[in-house]
Amino acid sequence: MRLRLLTTASKQLSLGNRQRHRLLATSASGQHQQEHQEYQPGGSRALYAAAAVGGIGAGYWLFHELDKKRRQPVELAQPQKATSSPVALDVEEAARLWHKTKRTDLPTYSTEDVLKHDKPDTGIWVTYGIGVYDVTEFAPNHPGGDKIMMAAGNAIDPFWAIYQQHNTLDVLELLESFRIGNLYKVEAIENDELGSPWAQEPKRHELLKPASKRPFNAEPPISMLGEHFYTPNELFYVRNHLPVPCISAEDYELELEVEAGAGKSSKCTFNLDEIKKLPKHTVTAAIMCGGNRRSEMTRIKPVKGLSWGAGAVGNAKWAGARLCDVLRAQGVEPDEHLQVIFEGADLDPTAHPYGASIPLSKALDPRGDVVLAYEMNGQPLTRDHGYPIRVIVPGTVGARNVKWLTRIVVADHESDSHWQQNDYKGFSPSTDWDTVDFGKAQAIQAMPVTSAICSPMPEERVKVDKGHITVYGYAWSGGGRRIERVDLTNDGGKTWHVAKLEQENEPDGRHYGWSLWSIRLPVTDEQQKQSELEIWAKAVDSAYNVQPESFENIWNLRGVLANAYHKVKVKLI
Amino acid sequence: MRLRLLTTASKQLSLGNRQRHRLLATSASGQHQQEHQEYQPGGSRALYAAAAVGGIGAGYWLFHELDKKRRQPVELAQPQKATSSPVALDVEEAARLWHKTKRTDLPTYSTEDVLKHDKPDTGIWVTYGIGVYDVTEFAPNHPGGDKIMMAAGNAIDPFWAIYQQHNTLDVLELLESFRIGNLYKVEAIENDELGSPWAQEPKRHELLKPASKRPFNAEPPISMLGEHFYTPNELFYVRNHLPVPCISAEDYELELEVEAGAGKSSKCTFNLDEIKKLPKHTVTAAIMCGGNRRSEMTRIKPVKGLSWGAGAVGNAKWAGARLCDVLRAQGVEPDEHLQVIFEGADLDPTAHPYGASIPLSKALDPRGDVVLAYEMNGQPLTRDHGYPIRVIVPGTVGARNVKWLTRIVVADHESDSHWQQNDYKGFSPSTDWDTVDFGKAQAIQAMPVTSAICSPMPEERVKVDKGHITVYGYAWSGGGRRIERVDLTNDGGKTWHVAKLEQENEPDGRHYGWSLWSIRLPVTDEQQKQSELEIWAKAVDSAYNVQPESFENIWNLRGVLANAYHKVKVKLI
Repeated sequence: MRLRLLTTASKQLSLGNRQRHRLLATSASGQHQQEHQEYQPGGSRALYAAAAVGGIGAGYWLFHELDKKRRQPVELAQPQKATSSPVALDVEEAARLWHKTKRTDLPTYSTEDVLKHDKPDTGIWVTYGIGVYDVTEFAPNHPGGDKIMMAAGNAIDPFWAIYQQHNTLDVLELLESFRIGNLYKVEAIENDELGSPWAQEPKRHELLKPASKRPFNAEPPISMLGEHFYTPNELFYVRNHLPVPCISAEDYELELEVEAGAGKSSKCTFNLDEIKKLPKHTVTAAIMCGGNRRSEMTRIKPVKGLSWGAGAVGNAKWAGARLCDVLRAQGVEPDEHLQVIFEGADLDPTAHPYGASIPLSKALDPRGDVVLAYEMNGQPLTRDHGYPIRVIVPGTVGARNVKWLTRIVVADHESDSHWQQNDYKGFSPSTDWDTVDFGKAQAIQAMPVTSAICSPMPEERVKVDKGHITVYGYAWSGGGRRIERVDLTNDGGKTWHVAKLEQENEPDGRHYGWSLWSIRLPVTDEQQKQSELEIWAKAVDSAYNVQPESFENIWNLRGVLANAYHKVKVKLI
Repeated sequence: MRLRLLTTASKQLSLGNRQRHRLLATSASGQHQQEHQEYQPGGSRALYAAAAVGGIGAGYWLFHELDKKRRQPVELAQPQKATSSPVALDVEEAARLWHKTKRTDLPTYSTEDVLKHDKPDTGIWVTYGIGVYDVTEFAPNHPGGDKIMMAAGNAIDPFWAIYQQHNTLDVLELLESFRIGNLYKVEAIENDELGSPWAQEPKRHELLKPASKRPFNAEPPISMLGEHFYTPNELFYVRNHLPVPCISAEDYELELEVEAGAGKSSKCTFNLDEIKKLPKHTVTAAIMCGGNRRSEMTRIKPVKGLSWGAGAVGNAKWAGARLCDVLRAQGVEPDEHLQVIFEGADLDPTAHPYGASIPLSKALDPRGDVVLAYEMNGQPLTRDHGYPIRVIVPGTVGARNVKWLTRIVVADHESDSHWQQNDYKGFSPSTDWDTVDFGKAQAIQAMPVTSAICSPMPEERVKVDKGHITVYGYAWSGGGRRIERVDLTNDGGKTWHVAKLEQENEPDGRHYGWSLWSIRLPVTDEQQKQSELEIWAKAVDSAYNVQPESFENIWNLRGVLANAYHKVKVKLI
């Protein structure tokens, strides 16, 4: 209640003349006026007055309340389609229809019109449902700070679906007060020809920002990523190498072959029910693309590969049958020379499947926690994440966590797939496409230690609160190495501050989940005067491996293993 | 034969006037003259002439031959005492007595006199046996380069005991030609009081350079370290925390206790024979002190700890009983929460033993290769290395490899020893002795990736050969992570060159030995003109972890985990 009242108070405090005018104009129409008054009750007047006097201070308090709220895991949902006409709506329910209702007193704009208004110079427009809103003057006072700019020139629907705190009458009122028009929407027409391998791609959450559409590769906004210890399935980055196959539970079959070179040769198959009947094992594991943070490395010198930000990673609880149980049941014994090859149902144009391999020692080790997963955060896998079975190889680069798993081979050699042999390998910074010899480097398995600042975002204007700013992000290391420490600096390394960690209590060597971290980072008066600040994050893992300082000396032609310090420049306000 | 002749040739080419005069003078005495002529046989004249014409080129060829030879493992021996008077000596045997024979024609000097002559300005003197030699003008032409300066003002005996290629008539002749006197030697008197805990310290090899004498802590010259894939036992760094205990094989007893909190409690003992009767397991493992390379970190800001160079590491074949076999025989089962505590027979002044612990998961894992070692490179352990039993915990910081092991406890807690709780932990660079909380950091177990340049040494004058210089060193990572690559640069990272690796063919995750590396590093004409060159080495392990670039951002108050790039400035000639 206190929060809600302050929202109203702060709203009025923060409105420019134009908005105040609009609010009054809108309020003049009976229903709005009535609701508005309902939220200015007598009992809150003292508080309202205090807030009016407190001014900016109250705004900061609100900011932190919202910030605290944002750090709670929230349920994600795709925006709902409009429901049938409501009967006997109450006031708040009515407000929830405004953005779905055409305002005949206002002009109509196309999405292209809106897109042109994505910065302060041009004005900042957003859409919600079919409403178009001019939030130019409100944006600097947005309690969530510059995060509003993620939607500039675009729809706020997917953000509000997650940040449910917007879904209150106060906020809906405020938004409607910015309304300038209606959106003329043409539904996108799917142009897939029948029979195209891309014809059956699944629908994706609108917040996943594609690095490529075919195959689909996309990451969520990292400020959201850092808010959930278990990444919501819909926000989990998607890395597809090929079109997504369509597999029904009934038709699914997994083949397991032990090749002649790998002991007593054998072959058997499992259907989905048989896999689900095996003892169920749950493991928390972050999965990270080998190219995560490539876009930062590219700034040094161009590389070949999708331009991933820092969001090509996610952390989830995976459940399924343990591969070590399956292999031991087939009589597979430890042998340092053997590999386990995985093949997916996703096929390249020559009908070869996606493939990868890991050492048998990892597959057989109960502490390796390799699972044939059919669940992700308690839900069946989605098609994009490998339905019905994906192998989860905790601590190992995403590329070995083969989706739509249809074949496992125990062999005396690695997978001969392109992705195992000629991709996902590291080289010296001076190796170029003329001199590279993929046969000379080891396929990436365990990943090195890394971290990222999820908030604030680059160029974000950050409010200084009592000499501090709030910074949060994630850190992770491969091979089951726990994160020992995350250090932050905002003075180029002269002073380092240790962040607070949120992590599972798993033992080292088996700590496959990521760690979230947060810190109230001190800012000096001198820094406030300069207004621009660069924040660096560096993580240290349980083997006391530390991130390298810069990308210059770890640059590699494929842009993988981009784990240098994460550096974010922000503006202080 | 070819090498020997060229040595003679090159010797004459490289002699200054003063030396040539001396050589002739010495040769005038019958025996020397005769031997000298024996090594100028007619058959070699053409080669001799060619070398004379070839001049410097021949010198470089020789340098590389010697260099190649040096990279072969050699037998180490302490310098032998003079034997009884020889009968019927042949010429070479006679030459081997010169440095043990007083020259009545020359003056006598004290070791202090010699010590004053340790650089070109003062003249460079060395001693060998009781001979004193002025090698000032020879030093720049020494085929082994500036390594001769390791003995400047000091004895060459321990070096020649290792570099056996000096032990030829040619070289002995050359040395004798530089003789300027006899050494007046007073044997050091051991002042240990009877009953002192230090009274029974073992004798150490003269090449081990102490960082502290009591307790004894010493490392070998790193240029020698990088020459032997298996570090000779006598050169293996010694890290003692307390006086060395005296334990006889007969009296030795190892106690194994499983505490109540750690399953079914039990207690048993093993004598040395019983341990030796268990299946013998051999593992190659590098052991590295947590403070290795601390002296480099100290340059940024002082730290507390012994000033180790890069030589607090060694690589050996260790053999003994596997701890996992011993524990499983006692019914110990995997449990992620348990620790294995080790206690040594070395006692602090309050009679508490040195102690450390590791997770049970490491101890029980057959791939962890933890052994109760009684052999080091095929020899029984020496007292300094833990006779009769030391636990070897491959991939883990030296401090957990407890020597003189007398007690093993399986417990639900770590060792409560000072060294586990309040030492050997890493902190942020801004943590100082006022703010440090040892309870908040994890005890170092697996070590991070590191490397060092063993040759050339800092400030060494290095000969450029056809636009290249030879550089070699070691690299290692903890946790069984294989070294994937070592990159070198001599232009501040603009170009990186990949070194050639020498390593065992052990699988990743179980690759506990170090890797030696070497490279012929290109030097540009421009760099040759500037004469000074800085070489950087950085290693990458199998998890693609890489060394941090500089010490500034990994500095910690105890100076541990000093694994930044190794940077060596040399002078080109």
